[in-house]
Amino acid sequence: MILTFEQEKAVIRTLLRKLGASEEEASATAEVLAEGDLRGFGSHGLLRLPYIMRALKRGTIVANAKVRVIKETPATALLDGGHGLGHHIATRAMRLAIERAKKQGIGAVGVRNSNHFGIAGYYAEMAMRKGLIGIVTTTTDALVHPWGGVEPLLGTNALAIGIPSKPPVLLDMAMSVAARGKLVKAMKEGKSIPEGWAIDSEGRPTTDPKKGLEGALGPFGGVKGYGLALALEILAGPLVGAAAGKEVKGTLEPVEGFSTKGDFMITVDPAAFGSVSEFEARVQKFLTQLKESRKAPGVVELLVPGEPEFRAREKRLREGIPIADEVWAEIERIAKELGVNLADILARSR
Amino acid sequence: MILTFEQEKAVIRTLLRKLGASEEEASATAEVLAEGDLRGFGSHGLLRLPYIMRALKRGTIVANAKVRVIKETPATALLDGGHGLGHHIATRAMRLAIERAKKQGIGAVGVRNSNHFGIAGYYAEMAMRKGLIGIVTTTTDALVHPWGGVEPLLGTNALAIGIPSKPPVLLDMAMSVAARGKLVKAMKEGKSIPEGWAIDSEGRPTTDPKKGLEGALGPFGGVKGYGLALALEILAGPLVGAAAGKEVKGTLEPVEGFSTKGDFMITVDPAAFGSVSEFEARVQKFLTQLKESRKAPGVVELLVPGEPEFRAREKRLREGIPIADEVWAEIERIAKELGVNLADILARSR
Repeated sequence: MILTFEQEKAVIRTLLRKLGASEEEASATAEVLAEGDLRGFGSHGLLRLPYIMRALKRGTIVANAKVRVIKETPATALLDGGHGLGHHIATRAMRLAIERAKKQGIGAVGVRNSNHFGIAGYYAEMAMRKGLIGIVTTTTDALVHPWGGVEPLLGTNALAIGIPSKPPVLLDMAMSVAARGKLVKAMKEGKSIPEGWAIDSEGRPTTDPKKGLEGALGPFGGVKGYGLALALEILAGPLVGAAAGKEVKGTLEPVEGFSTKGDFMITVDPAAFGSVSEFEARVQKFLTQLKESRKAPGVVELLVPGEPEFRAREKRLREGIPIADEVWAEIERIAKELGVNLADILARSR
Repeated sequence: MILTFEQEKAVIRTLLRKLGASEEEASATAEVLAEGDLRGFGSHGLLRLPYIMRALKRGTIVANAKVRVIKETPATALLDGGHGLGHHIATRAMRLAIERAKKQGIGAVGVRNSNHFGIAGYYAEMAMRKGLIGIVTTTTDALVHPWGGVEPLLGTNALAIGIPSKPPVLLDMAMSVAARGKLVKAMKEGKSIPEGWAIDSEGRPTTDPKKGLEGALGPFGGVKGYGLALALEILAGPLVGAAAGKEVKGTLEPVEGFSTKGDFMITVDPAAFGSVSEFEARVQKFLTQLKESRKAPGVVELLVPGEPEFRAREKRLREGIPIADEVWAEIERIAKELGVNLADILARSR
């Protein structure tokens, strides 16, 4: 199935509205999921909607949730998301962080009682579009082993850093070498995985994706990636009153209770640290120097973080977003159950 | 040569004072260099003093420098270090960042016109000791290649994150797989280096340390480490009005002009994001869970970031700090030149 950006958003919005999500919640979720698909982060796109729908039905994601600022200073805020849709809550959180940085030069917002928020880069980019640097991190269910350890005890804890530059820099990465979804895909296709991606449940390196899924994902960059994952786990977890380690639940599948994940966002206004035009000129000079530098044998072009995703986005805006058959079949099943006419939505939002 | 912590500090203080450094500058520099040696970061300890002395003589590091806040908000500050001793300037910067976070929940301080500041973790720990989270980054001369590139265009750009927890978490890492100093050491000893540490000047992986030093260091964690190094280069560089890429000079050896490096520090007060006791309890529970979890075959103990260095520190506080013969010989030569009686200092500061 090929959807346009507008079609994907309309489908998501409509289905979420059917389960009681507010217009604002449904729109924000649709926006972030569709942006995920546009950029090639399929695991954070429409694929996630059935999970969200199940959680909404169970009540572990709350529709029309009350999002409250429960603590604040002129530069910071702590949001209680009321267990609502993570994308909507994180969008609200980043708006607050942007406001604060515009006034104070730096802002920070923590989020508790929220849910999986899609691609971290979306929120860092919100800051970029306002001329700010955005730093966003979030916790997930424990999937990554500590250095020397066997058990999954750290989230994949995305870290996104967006910089308002030309070309724009938008780093968006997880702390695992490879995404869990890649192991699931390899398993389904009967393929092996590269060594380093995962260990089995005894802590031995494995190339069998099934054993890797029963074991734990490896942190990227060895002991350094482990250290960074651990620090982010505390920033987006205990710092904001959310869980850490094995206590983080509900980011992969709906659970009995509410999700216990957290988010932490920092925004920085370059204007607080000097001349904005000088900042822009220096970054542009640096990135130009980098892109024009000599390439390793076989390398055609040097890319800055975010560049591959921005290109995928342009391409898919033009050509449409390919949706996997099994994902679309699931959406069709959900639509039927809720009495939603998908063909009608697709025709109206072409 | 074995020095006590007090002896090392006294030697550094005395020699720096001889070249016109103020008492405050000399003490701060002595403190950070000796802390580097205590923790086993030998490349950031006494080894650096001869370089600093050469730069002071040349005037590319300015003694008794005027450190000024040139821009500020209630939550931020931009420091112009007046080309003074980096350790002293960074200590001042972190003090300001701590003050700001105590009042606003978050603080950020940028530093330009400074010099190499030793171990980044020292400043993150300053924040920790005040109950804050400290995040510190800094640029260095370009040593690391971009992903797919051949030329050194990124600094090793240390990132330190300190968390006030039990046990304390103090991540302090560079963006390269291995420190440049390790390649220098391998070359001197006629040893080869592991693949991945460096590429030669043609961009080919090399195990020859000499070729690696002529080429570029590899970013840790592949494309992800490259992305992080690039983001930090902009935060501690152009954001604070400092250079980036090949324009960063003066962190390895004195150069013709002043060093063009920069620093960026963020401080976060857990009290702004919830209950401090709850934060501490959650972190402690997480770290306990992690340390008590199952170990991989052959692993005796799981360590959190900073733990190896804190242990080295305790040991060296008790047993003294081993100083390499060639480093001590250089210090003796400098002392003689300046008419300083080292034996006298060592006897008085035992």
